[in-house]
Amino acid sequence: MNFNPANLKEKFGLFDEYWTPKIVGELNEQYVKLAKLKGEFIWHSHENEDELFYIIKGKLTLKFREDKEMTLNEGEMYIVPAGVEHFPLAKEECWVMLIEPKSTEHTGSTQAAGTVAIKDQEWI
Amino acid sequence: MNFNPANLKEKFGLFDEYWTPKIVGELNEQYVKLAKLKGEFIWHSHENEDELFYIIKGKLTLKFREDKEMTLNEGEMYIVPAGVEHFPLAKEECWVMLIEPKSTEHTGSTQAAGTVAIKDQEWI
Repeated sequence: MNFNPANLKEKFGLFDEYWTPKIVGELNEQYVKLAKLKGEFIWHSHENEDELFYIIKGKLTLKFREDKEMTLNEGEMYIVPAGVEHFPLAKEECWVMLIEPKSTEHTGSTQAAGTVAIKDQEWI
Repeated sequence: MNFNPANLKEKFGLFDEYWTPKIVGELNEQYVKLAKLKGEFIWHSHENEDELFYIIKGKLTLKFREDKEMTLNEGEMYIVPAGVEHFPLAKEECWVMLIEPKSTEHTGSTQAAGTVAIKDQEWI
């Protein structure tokens, strides 16, 4: 058994790449991941999986179809329901905690140059 | 579909009771809950369910059997594996985010005066 708490800000210090979530914990077949985001991602959805976004630093805008959007600030959380297309963008660097099932590819059913296959997702 | 992000610190302003987790979100058959903790809880475990603790404010000590313990500070996270007995205590008021399956009773298999039955857990 691991008796080490994870200090999330310290963990964010261990990597620099954007849009490449790192795994910091697992519970009940979910992964807890940390990601640094900057710029625009792609439109995608996760067919069967809800995805939690919790903002540790900065701001994240989530666009949805039909011209809806929201901006999440530090300390705010939103859960994107399964099947809902979303488009994340961050004008400035944003640090986010994600929680999603182990089976989730971060671009959902969309394949793109930035897609990190599940097997390549890294623990930090 | 709900388009409202949850600001966790605002949500914590909506209640004062200790050891009574409030639900702020759900994903993949899990609840995201917020709790204010102060003083000592009880020894308990969750037979089949891992439980995530993430500290929003203050400090939380988790004792384990065989005289092990850890103190989680603000911004730190720990996942108590299923089946592991733990005893939470907070000398000063502590605000914590919990993630656990919807089926979890917060005292696990232990019944105590402070136990809030699942049906009585409240959304805020």
